[in-house]
Amino acid sequence: MKILIIGSSGTIGSQITEKLATSHEVIKANHQSGDVQIDISEPKSIEAAFEIVGKVDAIVCAAGNVAFNAFSELSREEWEVGLNSRLMGQVNLTQIGIQYLNDGGSITLTSGIIADYPIAYGTSAATLNGAIQHFVNAVALELPRDIRINVVSPTVVTESLPIYGDYFPGFNSIDAEDLAKYYLRSVLGIETGQTFKAFAGN
Amino acid sequence: MKILIIGSSGTIGSQITEKLATSHEVIKANHQSGDVQIDISEPKSIEAAFEIVGKVDAIVCAAGNVAFNAFSELSREEWEVGLNSRLMGQVNLTQIGIQYLNDGGSITLTSGIIADYPIAYGTSAATLNGAIQHFVNAVALELPRDIRINVVSPTVVTESLPIYGDYFPGFNSIDAEDLAKYYLRSVLGIETGQTFKAFAGN
Repeated sequence: MKILIIGSSGTIGSQITEKLATSHEVIKANHQSGDVQIDISEPKSIEAAFEIVGKVDAIVCAAGNVAFNAFSELSREEWEVGLNSRLMGQVNLTQIGIQYLNDGGSITLTSGIIADYPIAYGTSAATLNGAIQHFVNAVALELPRDIRINVVSPTVVTESLPIYGDYFPGFNSIDAEDLAKYYLRSVLGIETGQTFKAFAGN
Repeated sequence: MKILIIGSSGTIGSQITEKLATSHEVIKANHQSGDVQIDISEPKSIEAAFEIVGKVDAIVCAAGNVAFNAFSELSREEWEVGLNSRLMGQVNLTQIGIQYLNDGGSITLTSGIIADYPIAYGTSAATLNGAIQHFVNAVALELPRDIRINVVSPTVVTESLPIYGDYFPGFNSIDAEDLAKYYLRSVLGIETGQTFKAFAGN
């Protein structure tokens, strides 16, 4: 299977890459590094990357930015970060990616636990993570040629606790290695339109 | 209670207005008519209206546009309709409205059944209705001075079946009069952070 992994150098993406690369051809994509460069907030960047990569069997997105701030302080510019990346970045990746997916291929996106369990400064993330989950539930019914789509919603990743731990007081974390399994389930399984909530125990 | 109803001339808004006006002071707002004019997709329009209206005890939004099209055909411009109105229009209304709400006041927004039950041409609506529901769930925890917020998610309205019925094959409709009760529950009750799903039976 030929698999494009966007955000392959990240905490989550590197574990997904490691697991899939043992038995599949993995194309690594990041903002600045990897086999190809993709900025999902720019449709032209997505198109340019696929022109280089060509047809694939699976697309995994472990990227997508969103701004954190108190709701009363959130500016439209901060909202735009998440609207253009976390939400429309993944929507655009889906719309463009379909054209480069082989029959029966799959798309796996990323949301996050804040959709279900709010944290301070997380209103924009909650809103846009939730949006992506509803997008996946709906768009799965419109995808052609047996193409599947799912989204993984991780809790805070153990390896990121030194940076983000204070934002998630009392939340159980998940090791990136365990989290990567949910992406494998989406890529290699048969489910579609699902949100895999990677936070049993919360 | 002084209540601002946005979209007061619409199928849903007119029923909400009729029910609340019997025992409350209702300020009617629409794009082009009413006591004040508001285009929720324009923050300046929201601010200008509140400058006229002043402090209120409740804000009800029965407005918010979104584009309908097959996912493969949905353009960024069509996405922007819903991003600016259904999603950010209601987010902006909340952010600005808080400043004009009396202590213990409330905000009631509108999403729609497509968030949970997809229909053809409804991917953008599903995504952005879902986004608003997650927004309400999260932002409720940040609102000051005992201000509450809820969202009503209606199925197709009986009075709108001649126009929209074909988009909702086999869906049960709700009479606007019955739907208005969910808005009253939000305005006059004590709940917050809730999505009132006005589609029992679907």
